[in-house]
Amino acid sequence: MQKPLILVVNDDGINAPGIRKLISIMNDFGEVVVVAPDGPQSGKGHAITIEDAIRCDKVLIVNGPQTEHSCSGTPVDCVKLAVNKLLTRKPDLCVSGINHGSNSSINVIYSGTMSAAVEGALEGIPSIGFSLLDHSIEANFSEGEEYIRKITKSVLENGLPEGVCINVNIPKSVKGKKLKGIKICRQAKGNWEEEFDERVDPKGRKYYWLTGKFVNYDKGEDTDEIALENHYISIVPVQYDITAHSAISKLNDLL
Amino acid sequence: MQKPLILVVNDDGINAPGIRKLISIMNDFGEVVVVAPDGPQSGKGHAITIEDAIRCDKVLIVNGPQTEHSCSGTPVDCVKLAVNKLLTRKPDLCVSGINHGSNSSINVIYSGTMSAAVEGALEGIPSIGFSLLDHSIEANFSEGEEYIRKITKSVLENGLPEGVCINVNIPKSVKGKKLKGIKICRQAKGNWEEEFDERVDPKGRKYYWLTGKFVNYDKGEDTDEIALENHYISIVPVQYDITAHSAISKLNDLL
Repeated sequence: MQKPLILVVNDDGINAPGIRKLISIMNDFGEVVVVAPDGPQSGKGHAITIEDAIRCDKVLIVNGPQTEHSCSGTPVDCVKLAVNKLLTRKPDLCVSGINHGSNSSINVIYSGTMSAAVEGALEGIPSIGFSLLDHSIEANFSEGEEYIRKITKSVLENGLPEGVCINVNIPKSVKGKKLKGIKICRQAKGNWEEEFDERVDPKGRKYYWLTGKFVNYDKGEDTDEIALENHYISIVPVQYDITAHSAISKLNDLL
Repeated sequence: MQKPLILVVNDDGINAPGIRKLISIMNDFGEVVVVAPDGPQSGKGHAITIEDAIRCDKVLIVNGPQTEHSCSGTPVDCVKLAVNKLLTRKPDLCVSGINHGSNSSINVIYSGTMSAAVEGALEGIPSIGFSLLDHSIEANFSEGEEYIRKITKSVLENGLPEGVCINVNIPKSVKGKKLKGIKICRQAKGNWEEEFDERVDPKGRKYYWLTGKFVNYDKGEDTDEIALENHYISIVPVQYDITAHSAISKLNDLL
């Protein structure tokens, strides 16, 4: 029997420790092809490159059975290019990550990691985004490994509901504290409270850095934020149909 | 009574004819502040700028009562910067567009125009994205004006359901054919079938242009695609909670 074909992508760039860990795990599950950005693409959401040409070159970052391509485009470009140009058959699985930092709650819509998984789902491929709640370059990507393997095995065997990918967030490793398991959740109602750091360049012209802090407004017990707070791995099913179906009749009255 | 404060944004850039038309209409409804990209930002989805600083300068493109700012960031950056830095009070309305080209069906998730409207909704502002199904620089933005006014008036008076913005698409102007009215719709199930145009640069290295054609797989009568085909203006309510709520119990069985 043919081994499953697994597409690996991320948004932190092809050299990031998170994708290296994910590749090493996926090599145990099938034939791995990596198509990942040549540099950081965090916060790129569902951006695609239409005004510029895209570079994509075969590379060898770390020895292993996988094939790797480094791409100048966004995470979503990587998935499109892989599926429509580089691969000769449709992948059996698309995994994105492991992201350096959380993609829980509203972060899901800004995340290049999760947008790549959503694009995989759009292409009809069972797709998973993995994120670790630790930005550090020395983050411990090993603690969640047992769960990444469990989730991957299940999705390869059972697939996912049509039009749905999953957003997996793993709590930051804390010494002496064991991961408690998995919770299937909904996206918590939260938002970023932005503060733009205003500066003045040597010529007297202003510029701004986007900064801010995340605030969770949601008191529900079934959210990803609560699961993560309690040291569970959160899994949120995510869809690309963003119609607010429940608002249709209200709008029919108003407009 | 204070005039409504209206934030105007787009993704085609501050000089595009579509935003010029929208500004001229909005000037009749309230105090208009424009914060728009300094150049084309189509297909930028929900991207934000976190690795670079953002420039934003006051400009005067066309005389009028509006205030205008030209921003180096993405459409979503423009909304964040407007709300959290430039404006002294929360806008009563955020309008995005008029986009040069369709944002119906799956285009909604790639669209900078619609992501700006979604960001407005996230900030608690009634928000509308307007798009015309005509890419031409000489597109006729006047035909839908009566409906843009009607929708704007309704949203200013009644607001929108919480967590929801609206995606308004206007059919391309066809001589002798009148717009039939408004239909409230759901996002059609469609997708892009990509073809990457592969080229070789003078040094022998490959590069790719993203091309493709949109395919509508959806036979439903209640979709935006069908409304537009029949020369109606389509309005789809759009939400930023992208949890696939109906998949939660299925995943609880599988994982």
